[in-house]
Amino acid sequence: MMVFNFPQKVLFKHCDPAGIVFYPRYFEMINDVIEAFFADVVKAPFEEMHQHAAVPTAEIQCKFLKPSRHGDQLNLKLEALRVGRSSFELTVDAYCGDEHRFSARSTIVYVNENGRPTAWPDAMRIVLENNIKGDGA
Amino acid sequence: MMVFNFPQKVLFKHCDPAGIVFYPRYFEMINDVIEAFFADVVKAPFEEMHQHAAVPTAEIQCKFLKPSRHGDQLNLKLEALRVGRSSFELTVDAYCGDEHRFSARSTIVYVNENGRPTAWPDAMRIVLENNIKGDGA
Amino acid sequence: MMVFNFPQKVLFKHCDPAGIVFYPRYFEMINDVIEAFFADVVKAPFEEMHQHAAVPTAEIQCKFLKPSRHGDQLNLKLEALRVGRSSFELTVDAYCGDEHRFSARSTIVYVNENGRPTAWPDAMRIVLENNIKGDGA
Amino acid sequence: MMVFNFPQKVLFKHCDPAGIVFYPRYFEMINDVIEAFFADVVKAPFEEMHQHAAVPTAEIQCKFLKPSRHGDQLNLKLEALRVGRSSFELTVDAYCGDEHRFSARSTIVYVNENGRPTAWPDAMRIVLENNIKGDGA
Repeated sequence: MMVFNFPQKVLFKHCDPAGIVFYPRYFEMINDVIEAFFADVVKAPFEEMHQHAAVPTAEIQCKFLKPSRHGDQLNLKLEALRVGRSSFELTVDAYCGDEHRFSARSTIVYVNENGRPTAWPDAMRIVLENNIKGDGA
Repeated sequence: MMVFNFPQKVLFKHCDPAGIVFYPRYFEMINDVIEAFFADVVKAPFEEMHQHAAVPTAEIQCKFLKPSRHGDQLNLKLEALRVGRSSFELTVDAYCGDEHRFSARSTIVYVNENGRPTAWPDAMRIVLENNIKGDGA
Repeated sequence: MMVFNFPQKVLFKHCDPAGIVFYPRYFEMINDVIEAFFADVVKAPFEEMHQHAAVPTAEIQCKFLKPSRHGDQLNLKLEALRVGRSSFELTVDAYCGDEHRFSARSTIVYVNENGRPTAWPDAMRIVLENNIKGDGA
Repeated sequence: MMVFNFPQKVLFKHCDPAGIVFYPRYFEMINDVIEAFFADVVKAPFEEMHQHAAVPTAEIQCKFLKPSRHGDQLNLKLEALRVGRSSFELTVDAYCGDEHRFSARSTIVYVNENGRPTAWPDAMRIVLENNIKGDGA
């Protein structure tokens, strides 16, 4: 399976009074990774897609394994799991060096401008599926 | 089971270019509900607890059932599920009128100032358990 | 001059690793105060106004006089300064008890759906001006 | 005067229901620029400095000249204006191509772990001043 890597330093704005990342900021990072994956790999930048469609999150779960501190150099890894008619399941895992910081699994859905789930356009589906099929290749 | 209700109007700052709540903002709301529950029900305000302890989130999952729009009057309901030695499982469900908007399940852990999981202080444990035991009463 | 009061407890999410409010969060609070003022006083809730118009901020300045800490009970006071054809100048001051925490001055502009500055609708202008004229009454 | 450049694409998370950057997000970007400047130029990364000191913002003002939209490739330029005993005045200007989007001016203050303004350490002062003196060179 292809892995999409996204480096993210832990910045002052991410951290809480306990000195560790405030977890809603992790979800902003996860959104950033998915946005970068669609721009760089799927070639469907959100700013263009959002003219007529969107990819809201239907479900997400995240295990926070170790805290991250200000200044940590994280690497977020996105991997494609499954492509449905209008859905896409993926994982995002964050590491600092070898240490696994969080493990997230998300399902996003392609919807039209009325918010109705809609089949992925072929050009996007092909890329999404290739990122999975590459696994067994 | 006792339910802790927390009203939250959807504000401009919560919404994205698609005009619906950007889901990381939901996690900020969920944090606010838990903070209010500890202040109002457990009588352990975070600002006091954080002098010597903290309650980081170990795991969270959330299903986003229907989108919420700017101006919606949400009601977030927190319910206690389970109290472990140092953990606490809870659910937060958001409704707009009768419409169920999201369903979240979270596990938080009581840790000391070194970040080590630590048994809940008795005064806190009693309240947390009473909120569950009330269920079968 | 009429003063619009808006209570805001300093929450965990507002604070940084130094244990004080991260100042971009103050600007979210300022936005919340203005949104509440338009909903409660001007009777022009942002969620309705944004169907066909908006009130972007043209300029803002803020002096941070004393830090605010987690748990502080702030009172934010909005006062109207000046109403132009399409602009509105206001101040927002935050206090914790008698202590002045920040002093902000903002100019917002009423724009149509194309982003062009547009004269305030009469119903809104009357309320905005009354909030200033009350000063000399 | 030396200019510190910081590229920032406008992401989904920065934008509001009007489709433009929500201005408190600009202040997060401004904080990111200053944090990067201290890490890269001053060689005083915030994550190290915050072990025993901090640089809270004393005052900031910002003119929002043109709206920025999702996908815009911004360049933020930081320039040093003045170094006081414990203060540092700087400007941050954002451009998209040739278009000037915002113009901010900020004063930050070096404080010790008790929050008291304290003279800049020599190593930091030299760099800050060199970034200004370079102007007339």
